Amino acid sequence: MAAERLVVIGGDAAGMSAASQARRLKGPEELEIVAFERSGFTSFSACGIPYWVGGEVPERDDLIARTPEEHRERDIDLRMRTEVTEIDVAGQRVRARDLESGAEAWTPYDKLVVATGARPIRPRLPGIDAAGVHGVQTLDDGQALIGTLERTEGRHAVIVGAGYIGVEMAEALLHRGYEVTVLTRGEQPMTTLDPDMGALVHEAMDTMGITTVTGAEVTKILTGEEGRVRAVATDEAEYPADVVVLGIGVEPATTLARAAGLPLGEYGGILTDLSMRVRGHENIWAGGDCVEVLDLVSGRERHIALGTHANKHGQIIGSNIGGGYGTFPGVVGTAVSKVCDLEIARTGLREKEARAAGLQFVTATIQSTNSAGYYPGAALMTVKMLAERRTGRLLGVQIVGHEGSAKRVDIAAVALTAGMTVEQMTALDLGYAPPFSPVWDPILVAARKATTAVRST
Amino acid sequence: MAAERLVVIGGDAAGMSAASQARRLKGPEELEIVAFERSGFTSFSACGIPYWVGGEVPERDDLIARTPEEHRERDIDLRMRTEVTEIDVAGQRVRARDLESGAEAWTPYDKLVVATGARPIRPRLPGIDAAGVHGVQTLDDGQALIGTLERTEGRHAVIVGAGYIGVEMAEALLHRGYEVTVLTRGEQPMTTLDPDMGALVHEAMDTMGITTVTGAEVTKILTGEEGRVRAVATDEAEYPADVVVLGIGVEPATTLARAAGLPLGEYGGILTDLSMRVRGHENIWAGGDCVEVLDLVSGRERHIALGTHANKHGQIIGSNIGGGYGTFPGVVGTAVSKVCDLEIARTGLREKEARAAGLQFVTATIQSTNSAGYYPGAALMTVKMLAERRTGRLLGVQIVGHEGSAKRVDIAAVALTAGMTVEQMTALDLGYAPPFSPVWDPILVAARKATTAVRST
Repeated sequence: MAAERLVVIGGDAAGMSAASQARRLKGPEELEIVAFERSGFTSFSACGIPYWVGGEVPERDDLIARTPEEHRERDIDLRMRTEVTEIDVAGQRVRARDLESGAEAWTPYDKLVVATGARPIRPRLPGIDAAGVHGVQTLDDGQALIGTLERTEGRHAVIVGAGYIGVEMAEALLHRGYEVTVLTRGEQPMTTLDPDMGALVHEAMDTMGITTVTGAEVTKILTGEEGRVRAVATDEAEYPADVVVLGIGVEPATTLARAAGLPLGEYGGILTDLSMRVRGHENIWAGGDCVEVLDLVSGRERHIALGTHANKHGQIIGSNIGGGYGTFPGVVGTAVSKVCDLEIARTGLREKEARAAGLQFVTATIQSTNSAGYYPGAALMTVKMLAERRTGRLLGVQIVGHEGSAKRVDIAAVALTAGMTVEQMTALDLGYAPPFSPVWDPILVAARKATTAVRST
Repeated sequence: MAAERLVVIGGDAAGMSAASQARRLKGPEELEIVAFERSGFTSFSACGIPYWVGGEVPERDDLIARTPEEHRERDIDLRMRTEVTEIDVAGQRVRARDLESGAEAWTPYDKLVVATGARPIRPRLPGIDAAGVHGVQTLDDGQALIGTLERTEGRHAVIVGAGYIGVEMAEALLHRGYEVTVLTRGEQPMTTLDPDMGALVHEAMDTMGITTVTGAEVTKILTGEEGRVRAVATDEAEYPADVVVLGIGVEPATTLARAAGLPLGEYGGILTDLSMRVRGHENIWAGGDCVEVLDLVSGRERHIALGTHANKHGQIIGSNIGGGYGTFPGVVGTAVSKVCDLEIARTGLREKEARAAGLQFVTATIQSTNSAGYYPGAALMTVKMLAERRTGRLLGVQIVGHEGSAKRVDIAAVALTAGMTVEQMTALDLGYAPPFSPVWDPILVAARKATTAVRST
């Protein structure tokens, strides 16, 4: 019997995890694996780019989890700098172009994995392509940005967007000695939080010396000598800029999938079943930043580009292709970040999302210390909790605070997954010792207050 | 209608939380509250004593959450230095002795809360009462120990017992410049962990310069000048000691309850129902370190002396007495601690406990970093997971490692409460960003390995 051929489009987290896991379960005599990657890198940590740019991670290669050579040693036929330009679903083949030579060829597949990732949203603005304007999605992007930082004598950095990437890049450029201005359309920075929690981030960023301009609609990138960026204009003002970083967010890179007729969701991501198989396609799987995932709290699909999901998807796809079994039940929307020493976390739904899902809810916000109040270095954290009206089911948690704040959100992530009520949460047996928690953990304090709020509904 | 009278025995966490919560719900016209406390302190953090002794918490009073005066301001008739010597259940009254005057009197009650706490286990050894031998259960104990430390010129400290108190006191005395020797009967320090995990603590303590002697049976305290301690003898050796700290553990202080015929469990703790009412007694509640609690994993009662449980008990008792409603469903056995920069955590059952509960299980142990491997300061943690054979239900987790290790156990604590399998845990949506976690959180890595182990059973 001839070996089956698995073709993988995309050599980053989801694609290469799928390839590696399939290879673990089936040897080359049973399964041939061909993977196409457009760039010069495989399996790298995009989430680590801000720390490389900021100088905390010394080398680009530190961000590479596995090199092309390492993948090839595992009998994966990896074609680097080769872009897939068409999926022929009926013919079970993909057309790929060697980006060096320009040569194109069809490769037939028995099974296909689509892991084309996400692309940064780049607003169509005058000057957006000027020298000194950078995205931070790929290692090449990061290298180009570092090049600009090393070359410019300037001291003004403008960051467009105040989501995770935006605030992390603000920290990175602050570390490199820039005066940093963050422009956001939103009412507050961190639009993944409710505005009342975003306001805490805003305040803290002020203290760090980061200027945040809210309600700012960028209209134009202004250029100067040699076409280099010199300022960013909004409808109200101009902000001098020697370097501009775009951190507006990403969207699923699904041009190829759309052209091939694969089913896409509301956010343009590929729709899969629980085994990560593309809906309606027996032999095509998709995972990572190019798919939509089920939000277990709202019951609807969302698009979340995050390495941890991509790795899980790849693992599951590889298992299923390799004859094992695995499913991805969905997400609860957990995300953590930091800007300097301020930790930021969320899970579940924030107010706007809960309303959009048709849910009625109560909220409770509390302030607590991260450790026993008397313990040296005890610092504040604010926890906001949403619970469904009447049932008291936990809907979401947001945390802003100092050391020990961010990963506390995991408690709520597990409780959401388990469908707990906030009253059930008040009885949770969480770790207590003075260096780690007050005798009532902040999550318990929030759950108690939310329980009281639920009773009044 | 005359007010009902609530009598509370014990002025620490459980007793005063119960009194305060009852008072919140019922004013003095409805409910009179009389509380008896034997010592000179109320509502203090015994868990904080090691940090006070070590000098990190500057003042004794920092450990007092609420003073007698603060309680009295809330219309609680608090009788300090007054010891209850008898509970007359049939007569619904308690007899109390004023420790200053020696006067005794009966106080009738309509409702009674027993919150008599725990007492340190003091082995009956020759020399145990010598000057320089200290327990660390009460603020008076802590003050006496600090007195000894300030007076002695010595440099040798011996700690008997290597549980939480033992290792925390080892850190405290190390901070104060002592050469510290820890003697434990156990195979490894931290007998609340399996020996393989305890061995990691042992190694780390060696590195910190703390000498740990395992399998050491203390036979005698040797005294010198003026009857002061000079050494601790085991069956095999003598260890010079200018100060000795007993950290062997505690047992429920239930002499009073036993004499009154209240039901006690296997460990000598009072047995209650889910509302914290003493079994078989309509108008008596008990909580805190003097009760046994249901272990939700093994299905059996345990004795766990921990401030966080005591506070919850008090809250629930006060609610129920005040006409509200609350229950304490049980614990999963979570405990966290640290010795210097080594964090130690457990939840659920360790191997010995799982076997004693009649459970068959698999184990999985993994090593991971606390943050992305490339992030500066990434440090190691070891996670051990127990899962039930065949069903794969999570049974327990133990963690030993550096920053960010201890509170990760909360993820497992919630998963245990929810009855999750280790395979369900592999899909948990835990917070990921390079400063906080590798792309696969250590708990997910352990869950994946445990899942594989379950499949082979």
